[in-house]
Amino acid sequence: MPHLHMEYTANLPELNADVALIRLNNALVASGQFAAEFDIKSRAVKVETFKVGTAMAERAFVHVKLALLSGRSGQIKKQLSDSLLAVLQDLCQWPTGVEVQLAVEILDIDRESYVKTAINH
Amino acid sequence: MPHLHMEYTANLPELNADVALIRLNNALVASGQFAAEFDIKSRAVKVETFKVGTAMAERAFVHVKLALLSGRSGQIKKQLSDSLLAVLQDLCQWPTGVEVQLAVEILDIDRESYVKTAINH
Amino acid sequence: MPHLHMEYTANLPELNADVALIRLNNALVASGQFAAEFDIKSRAVKVETFKVGTAMAERAFVHVKLALLSGRSGQIKKQLSDSLLAVLQDLCQWPTGVEVQLAVEILDIDRESYVKTAINH
Repeated sequence: MPHLHMEYTANLPELNADVALIRLNNALVASGQFAAEFDIKSRAVKVETFKVGTAMAERAFVHVKLALLSGRSGQIKKQLSDSLLAVLQDLCQWPTGVEVQLAVEILDIDRESYVKTAINH
Repeated sequence: MPHLHMEYTANLPELNADVALIRLNNALVASGQFAAEFDIKSRAVKVETFKVGTAMAERAFVHVKLALLSGRSGQIKKQLSDSLLAVLQDLCQWPTGVEVQLAVEILDIDRESYVKTAINH
Repeated sequence: MPHLHMEYTANLPELNADVALIRLNNALVASGQFAAEFDIKSRAVKVETFKVGTAMAERAFVHVKLALLSGRSGQIKKQLSDSLLAVLQDLCQWPTGVEVQLAVEILDIDRESYVKTAINH
């Protein structure tokens, strides 16, 4: 906890996913919401097969899901999603002629049943 | 919003994922639940490593998750999952001798913390 | 139902994902919580692009999500996550010098809108 998932469509060649994760993780550390930077586990997946809507226009999206142990307030969650969206907007030069949608979603992880362990830490 | 994820196992060679997403998106537009076709963001992932149950039989699955901003009624959600399952059932000639499971799940997205923006729209 | 997702980072070459899924499914059957082994649908995804925290240390993670139809008690969920974590810990010889985090999360599937069908069963 937290777990961050970033999906991005394959028609965004300027997006560097490794750099994106570093910046997103830095934003999470800067939020002050997480005791240890070590706990932030982020991954990015390039989406090769996708369809936005039904029209023929060229479209793309980047979608970030941040999963947190349940208990944080709506206000804190909104601050986190705003800060992650700000990172997304600044990730790259977006291609002209492509309609790009950026979104950030916050999910709760059920705290009672979440278990974890660390090896070599 | 909405976000649709389709997973399908790699032992379904007749399934055309691009066509599947077009049909699923068309079903969502036809539901009348979404103001703009542009908002429907769908992706498909072929699952290469999977295991259904513990028996030796050859098995496959297609699983669709539809994530909606919270607030829709259970009845509306059920109508949406029924209509998506109907699309799945008709996607292809299912292989004989393979036990195929099709499922559709509806998830809520926390409305308060969801943020998005569009570029070039 | 249930649906199990396992993510593992690409820097864990000793982890055999096929074997992992068999063991995880066996643990679910052994829990006695599921009427039919056939219902357990598990998949594993190798995560190629990931970042744990912000430090330079080499880090890895394995993350299991188990999605269940809503209604099980917190105690049952905790027993399930504990048993899956025990499987993860024993999956392989973990690499020395890599900080590995293992976690298991239980999610509810909205029961009212979940639909499924089986072909050739």
